[in-house]
Amino acid sequence: MMNLYGYWRSSASYRVRIALGLKGVEVRHIPVNLRKGEQLSSQHSGRNPQGYVPVLELEDGTRLTQSLAILDYLDATYPNPALMPKDAVLRSRILAASLVIASDISPIQNLSVLKYIRAEHGQEDVGVKKWSAHWISKGFGSLEKMGNPDTKFFYTDAPMFFECCLVPQIYNARRFGVKMERYPNLLRVEKACQSLKAFEFALPENQLDAPK
Amino acid sequence: MMNLYGYWRSSASYRVRIALGLKGVEVRHIPVNLRKGEQLSSQHSGRNPQGYVPVLELEDGTRLTQSLAILDYLDATYPNPALMPKDAVLRSRILAASLVIASDISPIQNLSVLKYIRAEHGQEDVGVKKWSAHWISKGFGSLEKMGNPDTKFFYTDAPMFFECCLVPQIYNARRFGVKMERYPNLLRVEKACQSLKAFEFALPENQLDAPK
Repeated sequence: MMNLYGYWRSSASYRVRIALGLKGVEVRHIPVNLRKGEQLSSQHSGRNPQGYVPVLELEDGTRLTQSLAILDYLDATYPNPALMPKDAVLRSRILAASLVIASDISPIQNLSVLKYIRAEHGQEDVGVKKWSAHWISKGFGSLEKMGNPDTKFFYTDAPMFFECCLVPQIYNARRFGVKMERYPNLLRVEKACQSLKAFEFALPENQLDAPK
Repeated sequence: MMNLYGYWRSSASYRVRIALGLKGVEVRHIPVNLRKGEQLSSQHSGRNPQGYVPVLELEDGTRLTQSLAILDYLDATYPNPALMPKDAVLRSRILAASLVIASDISPIQNLSVLKYIRAEHGQEDVGVKKWSAHWISKGFGSLEKMGNPDTKFFYTDAPMFFECCLVPQIYNARRFGVKMERYPNLLRVEKACQSLKAFEFALPENQLDAPK
């Protein structure tokens, strides 16, 4: 069985949990407590030189990092149901929308960036919340103009890479007080996802390491 | 012929130029002057709701955004030479390394982020340079521990997605005064790339919109 090193509230871990659920692949979940700084331990940096979660450890010990790269591996190895279509344009669009979240929202409000703006720019809770909400709103504003209004999910009738990224990002947006009613298209896709077991099982509060 | 909307010094545009060169695909280059704010015009946001470059416009008018998603399209449509291997683990590793740059370095020092820390955190040139150098060094430090020392390029004997990302990021790192001698493995890969015409043609200073 594969091991997934993750953290209940990490968006990137949450993406991988959704994909595993959609594929019906069981893994052993091994928590890395980001609040206690376990990601900075030599043990964890041995798994991932970036010191981030998630890390997917295959049965032969091979370790894969970066949530979208892990999704790419899972989609190649467990092809059904597919999380990317075959059509080159549609694939590119879905990947682009996923990258709006995975490149242009999420890393800018990574824990290490928030620590930096506290320590080096003197930002306190208000400034940190404003920062996170700003980048989430900017990205969601763009995404709201993308997608296909005629499909059940964002561009397709089945969940793809994008939905694995969107649902965790909305969860995170609510933590930072982003007014989600501004993004009806994204909420519509979230609602379609919520009807699927894979999304429910992947919820942060349903993880073993979530506070009771 | 396809149109590539880009900017000579944008790392993400530079990545796509390299990929096009490696594939031998000619496009019409249409500059969007980021220093003059042309990316914020309604004309450009009509091409890309994010207001970013690059945008690849196909012959039928379809527009693709996000450099890695454009590379994915190019690799599916012009398969030779491949910019991703078929092996699922190797693919995932190359994509992960690419994302260290395209997600965890580049977006944090995007023009819009630098504007924000100037306007909202009161950072001036010194603080902006320190910020950029910090995230580049952090990412490069991780990458230095990745890769395969026995291959000509980072993980393979031919350039892949990763090399399309690395060379522009090193170019950018030098602008921010990052000491590249700390990263001998990355420099080795850069050197291997520099022997290829595609990398030379893609250089920022070789673009039509570069200052003479």
